[in-house]
Parts: sequence; C-alpha cells; structure tokens
Amino acid sequence: MADMYVQKQHRDEPKASGWAAGIDVGGTKTLICIGTAEQQVVVRHKFPTVHTNDAHFFFESLFEELEHCLKQEGLLLAQLKGIGIGFPGVVDNDSGTITHAPAIPWSVQDRIHGDSTHGGNAHESIRSIVAHRYSGRLVLDNDVNMAALGEQWLGAARGLRHVMMITVGTGIGCGLILNGEMYKGAAGGAGEMAYWIAGEEQAWQAAKQKGTDEFGVFESLTSGTAITRSVKSALASGIPGTHMIRLAGGNRDEVGARHVLQAASEGDVEAQMILEPALVHMAMALTNVISLLNPEMIVVGGGVAEGNTYYLDEIRQRVALWTDIPCTIVPAGLGNEAGAIGALATILGSSVR
Amino acid sequence: MADMYVQKQHRDEPKASGWAAGIDVGGTKTLICIGTAEQQVVVRHKFPTVHTNDAHFFFESLFEELEHCLKQEGLLLAQLKGIGIGFPGVVDNDSGTITHAPAIPWSVQDRIHGDSTHGGNAHESIRSIVAHRYSGRLVLDNDVNMAALGEQWLGAARGLRHVMMITVGTGIGCGLILNGEMYKGAAGGAGEMAYWIAGEEQAWQAAKQKGTDEFGVFESLTSGTAITRSVKSALASGIPGTHMIRLAGGNRDEVGARHVLQAASEGDVEAQMILEPALVHMAMALTNVISLLNPEMIVVGGGVAEGNTYYLDEIRQRVALWTDIPCTIVPAGLGNEAGAIGALATILGSSVR
Repeated sequence: MADMYVQKQHRDEPKASGWAAGIDVGGTKTLICIGTAEQQVVVRHKFPTVHTNDAHFFFESLFEELEHCLKQEGLLLAQLKGIGIGFPGVVDNDSGTITHAPAIPWSVQDRIHGDSTHGGNAHESIRSIVAHRYSGRLVLDNDVNMAALGEQWLGAARGLRHVMMITVGTGIGCGLILNGEMYKGAAGGAGEMAYWIAGEEQAWQAAKQKGTDEFGVFESLTSGTAITRSVKSALASGIPGTHMIRLAGGNRDEVGARHVLQAASEGDVEAQMILEPALVHMAMALTNVISLLNPEMIVVGGGVAEGNTYYLDEIRQRVALWTDIPCTIVPAGLGNEAGAIGALATILGSSVR
Repeated sequence: MADMYVQKQHRDEPKASGWAAGIDVGGTKTLICIGTAEQQVVVRHKFPTVHTNDAHFFFESLFEELEHCLKQEGLLLAQLKGIGIGFPGVVDNDSGTITHAPAIPWSVQDRIHGDSTHGGNAHESIRSIVAHRYSGRLVLDNDVNMAALGEQWLGAARGLRHVMMITVGTGIGCGLILNGEMYKGAAGGAGEMAYWIAGEEQAWQAAKQKGTDEFGVFESLTSGTAITRSVKSALASGIPGTHMIRLAGGNRDEVGARHVLQAASEGDVEAQMILEPALVHMAMALTNVISLLNPEMIVVGGGVAEGNTYYLDEIRQRVALWTDIPCTIVPAGLGNEAGAIGALATILGSSVR
C-alpha cells in the first residue's frame, strides 16, 4: 500500500529543497519517517519503543535512531527543517508536556511514591529535554491528530478542509480538521469521542467511571476490545461459533475481534449478530458528527476497519438510513504510517497550520 | 438588559468612524440595529416581518425600514460599511440563496405548481435583488450563526475562541465558533444538532423522518414545543397539575412549556418530572459536544432557558456528573437582540472573520 503514494528517491538524484523527520511513538513500536517538501518519504524506520521511566534516556535512544536514519541519506540533524513527534496521550505542544499516556512510562507520575525521583518525568518538558540535541522546530501532538494530518496531507483526505479521522482499535481515537486546520479545542482536549454517551444507562456508566483510567462508554461499546469481549461472552454463553473458531485456527480461546469481522464479512450470521451493537453505536455517533460538523469526509483507521470492506459498508448503510447530509466515509489511506507522515506534515505541509 | 452593554449616542456627539446595519429577519418580527465600530448600537427598530411570496417586494419593504432608521441618525445607505442579515433557514452566503426556511414564504419554491411564476423566488439570489439598492458589503447567514457571533462580539462569550451557541425554543438551533471563526462545515450545514440521535428507538424515528420537514429527533425531545407536548399529554392522562394550571391563569388548556419551567423552578414535582426527559437529553448532548469539541463555553439562548435559572442549573449538574472536562454553560447575554447584533459583528467585528 505504502508504495502507491511514495516514490523512492535514489542517492544520485538531486537533494530536495527541505527535509524533515516525522516520528510516531506507539505503545509497542516507533516509526521514524524522513521526508521532503516535495511530499516524498525517503526513509522509513520502525523499531520497538524503548520502555523506560527515564525521559532523558528515552530521547537519547530516539535521537540515536533518528541520526542513524539521517546518515543513510547523508544528512545531519541540523539540516532538518523540523521534527514532528506524535504520542499516544494528551500532548500540550506549547509546554511540551504529555499526560494520559499509560503506554509511555516516563510520562506517568509515580503514583505510589508521589515523587518524581522514583520514576516518571511527567512535569519535565519534552522541549527542554530535546533542546540539548536539536534546536530547530519541534512540533508535538497526539498520535490521532497526527494521523488525521497525515491522511489530509498524503492520504485519503488529501487537501480537504473538513475532515474527521476516527481510529477504531484497542480504543477509539478521534482527530478533527476543521476549516483546514487541526482543531484542538480550548485546552487541547478535542476529539474525546470515546466518552460519548447515548441513553441513561450509558450516562450512569459515565458517572461511575468519571475521572478513572477506564475506557470511555462509547469506546467500551464500539472498539476492537469491545468486540473481542462480546464474542468471548457469547462463546462462554454457549453459542457454537463454528466459523469464527475455524478462523482462529480451531482454538476457541483465541477468537477475537478480527475473527468476528472476517466471519461477518463472509456471511456468518453469528458473527454479524455479535458485531451489530458496535456497528449501530458507531453509525449513530458518525451520524451525529455529520449533523453537527458537516464534514466532507470521515476517515476510519485502526485495526477494526482495516482490510475488511464489510465493516465500513455496514456503517455507511446505517448512516444513510438516518441522514441525507452527504459525507464520504472511507478507510484510512496510509495504514499505520499515517501518524509518522502526519508528523512530517506538521513541518512540511502547507495547507494546514 | 440591552442597556447594560449599549450606550446611547446623542446627535451632537461626534460621529463614529464606521457604521453598519445588522438585521435579524425572524418568522414574525424583524429587528434592525445600526451600530458603530466602537461597539455602540445607536438604533434599534423592530417591526412585523413582511409576509410575501415576492422577494423583490420583501427587500423593497426591508430597505424602506432601513432607510427610515438611517434617517434618524442623519445617515445615508451609501455611508454604511456593510449590511449583515440573518434568516431562519440555511443560507449560502456566496450564492446568496436561502433554503429550508418555511417561515420565509419567498424562499420557498412553489411545490404545487412547480413553477416559480406562481410564488417563491427560491432560485433568485438575494445578492442580485439587493444590488439594485445597495452596492456595499453584504453578509448573509443563518440566524443562529448570527446569534453566536453576537454573543461572541458583545454578549456572554465576548472574545472567546471556542464557543457553541444553542437555542432552545420552538425548535433547537446551534451555531459554532471554533478556532475563533464561525464554523459552517463543508456545505454550510454545520450545527444541525436538532437531528442528533441516541439509541435505536430514536434511530428508527430518524429513518422515518429523513428528508421530511418534521422536527429532528433530538429537537422533538428537548425543545419548548416538546415540553409543551409532554405537559399536555400528562394533563390529558389525568395528572392534577394544580400548580401549573394556576400559573396558566387557571386555564388547563393554556398550560405550556413556560409554565412547566416556572413551576419546576418553584419546586413543583409534577413539573420537574415532566421536564426531566428534556433535561437529561439536553445534558447528554452537551456532554458529548464538550467531549468532541472541548469548547470554552456553551451559550444557551431561546425561550426555554430565558429568565429561569432552574433549567441551566439542572443541566450543569447533570453534565458535571458525566464529564470532568471544564466548560462554562451560561445563558445568552443579548436576549433576542443577539441575531441582529451578530449581523452587525459580521461587518464591524474584528476578532471573527
């Protein structure tokens, strides 16, 4: 897929006018992309995310990997126009702090000791840590916002001005591009669709969970995790699940969201019934977003929609039943490179920011 | 209330540097305001909206009223920096057309004859009609968008960058100011919260009503009309309704939304129970808007919230139960002048547009 939108550049070609690095720090993997103002991604480098409580060590390792990538192209850090980095958490670009990022140990204040010397650099600015190594432009953001920018720069939503990106995977993430700009809201908290509620039962659930680290109510109905939980519960209650178990290599305990999605797309009625609540709630929420924001396009990323036309087809049919406001609902175009490419776009993109 | 933010200007004071007209065309009344770049509203003139199928006649009458207002200040039409006009419908500022405006007869294409000679100038641009009389700047928009701009220019949301205005009256209207700008979406259709759905029963209702002129599902649960319908149904089913009937002058048939709201605020349990569904659905929807958009403020206008602290207090308490994202929920500051003042702001305001 990646090769559809990227042309490899050879060493003997003339150098492009501007270079930048886009980095997507994930819970398990980190992806570094080096790209040019001509919208070419010339280096991609993926490696396991360094798990450490020490933010200084984290960025030391990250910049070693980055310099290794640059060396491949005969470039120096100082030649970059800037570096964009996306993280799975709430990121304040101005202060350079990151919160609500359980997958990033150094971002988490030590709750037992209540003392930053025992782990966690939550209050230390990423900007000040990076400043020792790089003095150029540094843009920090949430990973889903970066993915939305990536899709708008080089992916499914190329050049559009009103776009929502929603990722349906372990949880639900959401990034908004409105009036051609990243929309972050008053305190950088926009896009928390995971916490949507619909109906009084959900409202009580939200009241119970408020302020905890638990999944949001909407997320706990529609994410991949939710679909896995539903199928496990259905199997435990005694449904045969023959088709889904076969797809999971005959292992009943291994059946999860992706087997439900595959079986459903192959016409398995059990799988379709298990998927139905997640589909209906997602379609209702997207209908509401369309009514409120009138976006040109909703891009659906994350594991649940990936490589499976059934899921989005079913969503589209339900949305069309409930609203006649036009909005294109499409799968993400950049797969799991969207975040790193969006991080590049924060430096190299012109239409946004 | 109006006098709190407006200083009257006397004829013998020096003239302000720039003048503009802001006009709010309502279903029953039209309000013309003449204001200055110094944020002074010097003329207010309210009169019955002219009901006619003929758009040319409509604007001829409107400009007669406007010139009458200008004459009071010794001004000529040509001296205005611009004119802003808000309408109760979907307005395309570029083409100058207005649709979905049942209260404005000339905006409605004749459905019986299917022929524009039999009434309705739906396809005729307001811009071309007005051009005969005024060649300066003309800004056209929906009345709720205008009200949101008014509240942001001189009202409750003065100077804020992320604001939702929602009006709760006969129906539900919604205007969004995001990143300091009016947000209209891809085709000018943003803010249609009236059509939100929450739950499968509502989804079926939405499917049934799609493409009709009926109230949206959310609106039919939360508007003043909905509250009136609920109380009438409760009275018909035999509840005593003593307090509400007393507030309606002893006339059972006259009991409506405003009596429910007043009785509820005075502690009448029957009224509070009748109001509850409208409150809960409104509070859930505002919670979802807060999660998605992280606005600094939600301004609630329209007849239901006006002059009654109970309604907003109850909404705030429910929202606080479900989300800890901060957002101030306040009543509108400009009352029913917000639309005309917002129309002025489109010409005279600097922070927006």
